[in-house]
Amino acid sequence: MPAITRVEVKDIRFPTSRSLDGSDAMNPAPDYSATYVILHTDAPAGLAGHGLTFTIGRGNEICVTAVRSLSGMVEGRSLASITENMGAFWRQMTSGDSQLRWLGPEKGVIHLATAAIVNAIWDLWAKVEDKPLWKLLADMPPDELVRCLDFRFVSDVLTPEEALAMLRRQAGGKAIRECELIEFGYPAYTTSAGWLGYSEEKIRRLAREGLAEGWTHFKQKVGGDLQDDIRRARILREEIGEQAVLMMDANQVWDLDEAIFNMRQLAQFSPMWIEEPTSPDDILGHAEIRRRLNGIGVATGEHCHNRVMFKQLLQAGAIDYCQVDVARLGGFNEAILVLLLAAKFGVPVCPHGGGVGLCEYIQHLSLFDYIAVSGSLEGRVLEYVDHLHEHFADPVRVERGRYRVPTAPGSSIAMHAASLTEHLFPDGPAWQFSTAPRTP
Amino acid sequence: MPAITRVEVKDIRFPTSRSLDGSDAMNPAPDYSATYVILHTDAPAGLAGHGLTFTIGRGNEICVTAVRSLSGMVEGRSLASITENMGAFWRQMTSGDSQLRWLGPEKGVIHLATAAIVNAIWDLWAKVEDKPLWKLLADMPPDELVRCLDFRFVSDVLTPEEALAMLRRQAGGKAIRECELIEFGYPAYTTSAGWLGYSEEKIRRLAREGLAEGWTHFKQKVGGDLQDDIRRARILREEIGEQAVLMMDANQVWDLDEAIFNMRQLAQFSPMWIEEPTSPDDILGHAEIRRRLNGIGVATGEHCHNRVMFKQLLQAGAIDYCQVDVARLGGFNEAILVLLLAAKFGVPVCPHGGGVGLCEYIQHLSLFDYIAVSGSLEGRVLEYVDHLHEHFADPVRVERGRYRVPTAPGSSIAMHAASLTEHLFPDGPAWQFSTAPRTP
Repeated sequence: MPAITRVEVKDIRFPTSRSLDGSDAMNPAPDYSATYVILHTDAPAGLAGHGLTFTIGRGNEICVTAVRSLSGMVEGRSLASITENMGAFWRQMTSGDSQLRWLGPEKGVIHLATAAIVNAIWDLWAKVEDKPLWKLLADMPPDELVRCLDFRFVSDVLTPEEALAMLRRQAGGKAIRECELIEFGYPAYTTSAGWLGYSEEKIRRLAREGLAEGWTHFKQKVGGDLQDDIRRARILREEIGEQAVLMMDANQVWDLDEAIFNMRQLAQFSPMWIEEPTSPDDILGHAEIRRRLNGIGVATGEHCHNRVMFKQLLQAGAIDYCQVDVARLGGFNEAILVLLLAAKFGVPVCPHGGGVGLCEYIQHLSLFDYIAVSGSLEGRVLEYVDHLHEHFADPVRVERGRYRVPTAPGSSIAMHAASLTEHLFPDGPAWQFSTAPRTP
Repeated sequence: MPAITRVEVKDIRFPTSRSLDGSDAMNPAPDYSATYVILHTDAPAGLAGHGLTFTIGRGNEICVTAVRSLSGMVEGRSLASITENMGAFWRQMTSGDSQLRWLGPEKGVIHLATAAIVNAIWDLWAKVEDKPLWKLLADMPPDELVRCLDFRFVSDVLTPEEALAMLRRQAGGKAIRECELIEFGYPAYTTSAGWLGYSEEKIRRLAREGLAEGWTHFKQKVGGDLQDDIRRARILREEIGEQAVLMMDANQVWDLDEAIFNMRQLAQFSPMWIEEPTSPDDILGHAEIRRRLNGIGVATGEHCHNRVMFKQLLQAGAIDYCQVDVARLGGFNEAILVLLLAAKFGVPVCPHGGGVGLCEYIQHLSLFDYIAVSGSLEGRVLEYVDHLHEHFADPVRVERGRYRVPTAPGSSIAMHAASLTEHLFPDGPAWQFSTAPRTP
C-alpha cells in the first residue's frame, strides 16, 4: 500500500451567488465552495486521495488553515497503518491532539477540516482496492466495518457488539440488494424548482421539466415571508399535482413557536417533512415541534455536528428523517455510525446533498446503507441538486428521478484539474475582473 | 465616541506544557494560549479595546485566521453605532454574514473568534464609560441590558419581556449587593492542588498552603486511572478535612456508564459536583448521569458552545451548576443571556476560569450576576486558577478565598505589552531555541 507524502489543500469557490442558485431564507447568497484536499502518495502514476468539505464562500480560508494544522497527522503515514485500524485513526484525528480538540470538540471548523482529510483517506483506500467507495464498504466484513468506527460517547445507546449483530443480520440479503440498485438505481428528490428568489414562471417551468424527467419528490424552500411561502407552495402543488411528494425546508430561520405557527398554515399543502425548522442545536425544540405538528415529518441534520447530537435527536424522538452530512460530520466513519444509530431507532436516513460535491459523496453512503445497514428504501430519498456536477470527473448520474450506481474507483469527489485551476480563490480566473461576490 | 480604525490580532502562547500546569485527563499537555484582539481607535491617547479567546496551543492560528475573516464587520464602525443596539450588532456578528455562519453556526472556531472581538467591544465600551465592565453592566438600565441580547432560538423559554421583568425585580437590591461585594469580595474555589500529574508531596503541600490562605473549596481532576483518582481524593480529603468542599472534574473522558460507575466509587469523598463527566454535547446523557448519581451535583459548560445548548441543559434538568465560558460562547452578550436562563431555572452559575485570562473575565460576569440577575451567592463559587496572572495589567486579586472587586476601567483583560511580545507565536522569545512544546 502507498504512503501519504504530502497533504495539499486548495480554496475552491464557485460564484453561485450571482445566479441565486442555492438561495434560501438563511443563506440568501451563497458561493458554493470546497476546502479541497489532495493526499499525494509515493505510488506510481500519481495515485492520490481526494476529499473536500463544503462551505458557502467566505470562511473557506479558515477551513483551509485548519486542514494545514491537521495535516501532520497523516503526512508520512502509510495507508496501511491507517486502514488496519480506521477507528483508532479516526479517534486520533479527532482527539489525539488535545490542543486541536479544544477548538471543537468535534464541531465547527476543526471537524469540517477533519472530514476533508478523513474522506480523502477513504477515496484513496477505495482507489487502491479498485472499487467505488460504496462497494468497498458493502463488501467489508462486519467486524472490519465495526473496527472503522469510534463508539465513544454513543456506547450507552449502541455498542460495537450490537453494531456487529446488526450488520450480520443484513449480510444475507446484500447481494440481492446490490443487484437491485444496479438495475433500478436509488430514489431521489429534487430541489431545483424550490429555491427562494426564483420567479413564478421559473418555478412552473422547472416543476414541469422535473415531472417530465420523472421526478416524484420535490423540495421547496420556506422561511421567507409566509404569504410568499404559501404562494410558491400553491404554484408547486398546481404543477406537480396531489400524487407527487412535496417537502419543505426552512433552513433554521424560525424560533419554536414561529415554526409551529407557520407550518400549520403550510400544512394544507401536505408536506412530507419540514426540514431545519429551527436551530440545528435544539434537540428538545425539534422534539416539541414534532409533537405539536403531529403529522408533518421533522427532518434535520445538515448542520448536526456529530454523532452525539444525532444520538440525542434519535433518543428524544425529535426527527422522522435523519439528514446526515458526510462533510459536516467527521467524514464517512462518523456518518456510518449515524446510519447504525438511525437503523436502531428505525429512522430513515436521507443524507444532505445541497452543496458542491455532496451529491457525489452521499450516493456512496446511501447505497451502502441500503445494501448493508438498513436494508430498506422505505422513506428514503436522496437529495439531488442540479448544480456544478460538470466540474467532477465522475459526476452523479440521475435518470427518471433515481441515482444510477457509480462504478469508477474512489468516492466520485475528484474535480477536473481545469475546474480547480479556474475556481481557485482568490487568484483563479473565475474570481478576476468584475466578478466580486455579493456581500450579504 | 470613538471609531474602530483597525482590528489587530496576535497569536499568543504560553509554554505551560513544560510544567504540567493545567494537565487533566483529556488535555495532558496544554499550552495556554490566547487569540488576542486589539481594536485600535481614532481616539487620542491610544484608546483601544482588548479581547481574547482562550485555546490550549496548536490551532490558535486557526482562531487568528477566523478573527481576520470577521474583522470587516467592525473595522470602520463607530463604537456608538454598535452600542446603541448591541443585540442587533451581536446578531449581525453571528448571523449577518451567512457565508461565515455556515462554519458553525455559533460553535467552534468561528464562535471563539466572535467572542474575542465582541469582548473587545465590551472592553472598549467600559473604558469609554470609565468603569470596570461589571459596573457598566450593573448600572445599565434593564431595558438597555435587554437590548444587548439576542433571544433568537431561546424565546420559547425566555422572552425579552420576561428578562426585563427579572432584571427589574432585582433593581431594588443592587446598591446593597454592590457594597457587600466591595466589602467582602466574591467566593471562589481553587484548582491549584488538583491537577493530574502532580506528586503526592506537591498535592499535600499545595492543599496545606491553600487552607492556610483561607480557601474552603478545592477542585480535583479525575478521569485518569480510577485507583489514582481515589488515591488523590483521599490525600486531598486528609489535608482539607471534612468541612472543606471538594469538587471533581473529569474533563469529558467518560462514556455514560463509566461516569456513573466511577463516580459511585468516588462518592465516598463527598464531592459537591462532578464536572464534565462526559461529552459536552450530551445533554440527555448529563440528565441521565444526574438522575442516576442522585446526590452528587452535575456541572458542565466550559465546552457548551451556545445559549441553545444551555437552554436545553436547563430544560432537561441536566445540571446543578452552570459553568458558562465567556470566550467559548459568543462573548458577554450571550453569557448574560445564559445568566438569565439559569436564574429562571434556579441553577447557580459558576463560570469557567481555567485558562489564561478567563479568571480576569469571569469576575466581571459573576459580580454582575449577583448584583443584577440572580441576587444570590448560594451555591456560587468562582473558579480560580493560579496561572499567568502576572501578564495582565490589572490582574485578579484573590484574598482569603475570595475575589476582590476590580476597579480599573475595562474588562481586566489587557496584557502587558512585554508579555505580548515575549509570547508571540512562533517568533517571540518564549518560543525560540530549545523550547519546542511537547507533542501529545
